[in-house]
Formats: sequence, C-alpha cells, structure tokens
Amino acid sequence: MSQITIKDIASKLEISISTVSRALNNHPDIHDNTKKNVSDLANKLGYRPNILAKNLQSKQSNQIGVIVPEIRHDFFANVISGIEDVAYHKGYTVIVSQSNEDVKREEINLNSMYLNRVAGILVSISQTTTKSDHFKRLIDNGVKMVFFDRDIENLDVYKVIIDDFESSYNAVKYLIEKGYKKIVHLAGPPNLSICTKRKLGYEKAMTDYNLSSEIMVIEGGMHEMDGIAGAEKLLESGNLPEAIFAVNDPVAIGAFKRLKEDNIKIPGQVGIIGFSNNPITEIVDPPLTTVEQPAYEMGKSAAELLINQIEGKEINLVTKILKLETKLIVRKST
Amino acid sequence: MSQITIKDIASKLEISISTVSRALNNHPDIHDNTKKNVSDLANKLGYRPNILAKNLQSKQSNQIGVIVPEIRHDFFANVISGIEDVAYHKGYTVIVSQSNEDVKREEINLNSMYLNRVAGILVSISQTTTKSDHFKRLIDNGVKMVFFDRDIENLDVYKVIIDDFESSYNAVKYLIEKGYKKIVHLAGPPNLSICTKRKLGYEKAMTDYNLSSEIMVIEGGMHEMDGIAGAEKLLESGNLPEAIFAVNDPVAIGAFKRLKEDNIKIPGQVGIIGFSNNPITEIVDPPLTTVEQPAYEMGKSAAELLINQIEGKEINLVTKILKLETKLIVRKST
Repeated sequence: MSQITIKDIASKLEISISTVSRALNNHPDIHDNTKKNVSDLANKLGYRPNILAKNLQSKQSNQIGVIVPEIRHDFFANVISGIEDVAYHKGYTVIVSQSNEDVKREEINLNSMYLNRVAGILVSISQTTTKSDHFKRLIDNGVKMVFFDRDIENLDVYKVIIDDFESSYNAVKYLIEKGYKKIVHLAGPPNLSICTKRKLGYEKAMTDYNLSSEIMVIEGGMHEMDGIAGAEKLLESGNLPEAIFAVNDPVAIGAFKRLKEDNIKIPGQVGIIGFSNNPITEIVDPPLTTVEQPAYEMGKSAAELLINQIEGKEINLVTKILKLETKLIVRKST
Repeated sequence: MSQITIKDIASKLEISISTVSRALNNHPDIHDNTKKNVSDLANKLGYRPNILAKNLQSKQSNQIGVIVPEIRHDFFANVISGIEDVAYHKGYTVIVSQSNEDVKREEINLNSMYLNRVAGILVSISQTTTKSDHFKRLIDNGVKMVFFDRDIENLDVYKVIIDDFESSYNAVKYLIEKGYKKIVHLAGPPNLSICTKRKLGYEKAMTDYNLSSEIMVIEGGMHEMDGIAGAEKLLESGNLPEAIFAVNDPVAIGAFKRLKEDNIKIPGQVGIIGFSNNPITEIVDPPLTTVEQPAYEMGKSAAELLINQIEGKEINLVTKILKLETKLIVRKST
C-alpha cells in the first residue's frame, strides 16, 4: 500500500501540511485553485488518506448504499439512476447490492454496508422479508435509512412510495369502463405491502362497480415465471377471464407470453394490464397497457431525503411518507 | 453508534475475550458452535466490530467491488449474478457501482472503493475510457483487480473475455453463407478493444469471402439510440444493405425499431444480427439472431480469479487471459 503522506504533498507544493489537510477535506477557507492542485498531486502520487483516522473523526465514508431486490428490473435501474444523479452531484458515491429477493442476503448486504460505514442506506425490501429486525437494529444504532417503493411497516423512517391502492383502483376502473367484467388479478406476495395495496385497490374497484362476484385473485411472486404460472392456471381451468390485471410488468409479460403460446388473442380474447411501464411493455406485440411509476423521481427524492438527514438538514415534510403520482399508459393490450 | 464491545459478548457468554475475538475472525481453532453463539449474540446486541482497528490489521473489508458501464444491460446483470454466486459462497459481499459509460465516474467509483478498502475490484471499462492510469495507480498500490468483457490494453492483470474476433467472424460467415452479400456493420467506439475486434472479425470474413468491396462500417456507441442513429443513416442514404451486423444487442434493437418504423421488412428486406443474446432479442417480432456470450460464467470465472488472488492461492493459467466460448443463436431475423 502507498506510503505517500500529506507531508509529501505539502513539501512538493511548498505549502503547509494544514493547508493540504484542509484542501483534502474541502475546507471553505481554502482557495479552489489550491484544492485542485492538492487533489491533482494527491491523485498523481496515489495518495491514500488514512481512512482509519478519517473514519475515527467522521465515523463514516461518503458512500451511499442501495439495497434492491434486483438490479436488472428496469424499475430499479431507473430508481438507481435517480439516486446517482443526486448523490454524485452532492459529492457521494453510490454502491448497490442486490438481495435477489432473499431476506438472508438482504441482511448480509445490510450488515456489510453498516460495517463498512456507509453514510446512509436506501432500501427496497425483498419479497421474502417479513420482519424488520435487521433494519431496526441499525436504525436504533443511528444509521440513516430511507425506504422506497417496497416499504415495510412499523419502522419510523422516511419512505418514498406511490399510492399503490389508488393506482391499482384506477387501472381496474379503466378496464371496467372499457367493458371488461371478468377481471382476474395476478397478485404478488402478501407480505409486501405494495402487493396487498394493489390487491385491495383491485377488490375495491370491482366492488364499487358491482363486480364483487367476479373477483378472482391468483397469488404468486413478482417475476415473469410467476406470470407464466398464473396464466397456466387459468388455461388449465378452461375458464379464461376477459382481462388480467398483473401486480407488475414482469408478471404481465409472463402471462402474455404463456397465453400467446396457446394462440390466445390479446386483447381479442384476454386483455392484459401491467404495472411499472418497463420498456419491454412497449416492444411486445401488442404493446401492454401499464401503470407508469415515476422511478427516476423516486430515486431522486429518496436520495435527497437520505442526504439531508446525513447532513443534518431540516426536512419539510408533514409526514415521513412521500407519495409520488402514477399515470395509466393505455396501449393496445386492452 | 453502538457501544457494545467484545468484552460484553465475552462476559454474557462466559468465555474469554480472546475466544470471542478469534470466533469473530473465524479462527480455525474455535469450535463452530462457539462461532455461531458469538455471532448470534453479536448480531442480537448490534455489535459493530471496531472496523478501524480491524482494518489496521487486515487492511481490507470482505467486500468485492464491481464497476460496470450499466447495471440495466442484461449482459452485465448476468455477469453480476455469476460474481455474486461465487462471492457469497466464499464469504464475500458484492457492491456494484456503474460508470454510466463515463470515465470520470468510473474513476470516482474506483477511488471510492479503494479508499473504503474493498478486498478487490472487478471492472468492465466504460466506452469513454481511453487511458488506464486510474487503474494502474491502484494496481501498483497492490489492489487486486480482474477485468472482464471490455478489457483494457497494457495492464498486467487477469482478464476474462470472449474471442470477439472469432465470434464476430463466425456471425458474418453465417450471414454470407445464408446468401447475404451487402452487409453493413454498426460498430462501437474504437477505444473499446471488444469493438475493434468485432469490427476486424467482420472485415476478415467479408474479405475471406471476396466481399471486401461491400465492407461498410458505421461507427457509434453501444446503446439503442446508436442503433437508431445507424439505421437512420442507412435510410437517409436510400441505399439499404441486405443485412446489418450490430456490435451488440441494444444497437441491433435500435436499428430494428427504426427500420420497422419505416415498414422495412425484417428479414425480407434487411436481415439483422446482434451480439449478447439479451432476453429482448427473443421477444421482438421477428426474434433476433445473435451471438450468445456466457455472461454468468464470465462473472463466476472473474470472481474466482479475484478471490484466489485475494486469498493468495495459486492460479493455474498459462496466460493471464481467460477466453470463454460463444455460440451463434439463429432466429428469424436472418
């Protein structure tokens, strides 16, 4: 490891050690040119600050940790872009770990980030997360955390979410107004509150329009294979619905693929509506109707809430829950 | 922050401080049951090891850092899955940062990981990376690094790649044998060696089959918009080729979309072939012919090479370059 010290930099630039130290710490009293000279030379020499001493002072790095179920899901990739744009602008770096929908890996990632003293953590929980102990432990120890999209009950933290109940209600209402009556809901796991809320929105719309006798929910996960399994069940029952409202786009795409395999006409025989507005929903034939979530905005807001807390700034929100607006994108699948 | 110490754990379990310390450090002399008891209690109490002291000893964490151009690209998502499966199995956690194809952000992420003392770093360079100084500096300082897919010249490190030249040659050879003569190559940026090699493979195949007069290369980036721009140029020229060989799938999809907009029949008027085998290539109509890269295997191999170096194990490779096999997946677009 490098043996270059602040002293070496100071002597090469013929300035004081204290000036180098303050320049490296971005102290306001130091001129920008000096900061640049110090930083350039530090980079050139491969100077590595004594992060141990630095950590002792600041107790944290400038990394923001993000834990998501999976990075390949376009929704999360967009949230991460929003987080990055805020974070890098404010001088933080962003590291991402995926839980792969596994609560154990979620906990390992969380603890690893904590031990490596990230400045704060942004989380969207896994579909197997049923308890909040592993989060609570760190929050009680002073770790700043903000939850987004998939939040968790009973934690006194900031959350950035959408109104899943209302968005789902409006999507189903749209289907009913288009003339669909027999609408099946391919639901997600009930421990995820977003899934429960989307299911309740579906049930409320069906009930409000006197279609409670048509309510049918098939429960599964949040992935394409779950949509395939859901469609499979419907095909096996020999009793196809007029429309499918899926908990998210991967599930909608799975159902879409499986029905197409059996030459079911979409929307002629079965209408399909998803949730997220993944780019793939636009490319399939016919393109899918879906609920657009403001993923990028969600990432930005979550990062801002986290950084404001890290930096001890005031946050002007009436509640700790920030709800963002969604939009129904009507395409040819309905 | 937590004030729990090793002493608290030792006294609660009625064992010595040294036993607790060795248990937490996974020392072979300590019984597995003891390790479990210590670890469970440490978790329960929210014990946070004095990572500063720990870092002073070990000089690194158990995190493996991964820097990729973008996590949403299915190819990289699959590589990361392979990395994770090896890393978590061996007791490491994985953190990912994206460069967003920006060499500046690549350098910021690299330095941030270095400063936070990751155990090692896996890198696939950005399309704007033309120099290797920022890598060389860390490598000279003893940081273990393995490059994958998009490697960089002039660095004495392990690399896990595919044979881009040969894979590209075979893809173009296939097109020629199908009867296509006028084949355009939508190429990537020349500073990425994978792009140069794919272009050379295209040119060699064309030359070997006496089609050197038909060689036409349109240079661009690695994204969908670059494919759209490439197709736009071809449409404007009024001189469409019989087939397009794209540097990767996003570029192929971009060209595909743009040509479809003008009602060009694929493969009737123009055949298209991509590179990566992204899932989307299977869903579009018609599905795209493409070169399948062993992304998951690439991630596994890269992680193994890195961890073996971190742990000082012997590596039995004749050269530092590990080449993985690709496969041409023929679908209806050609």
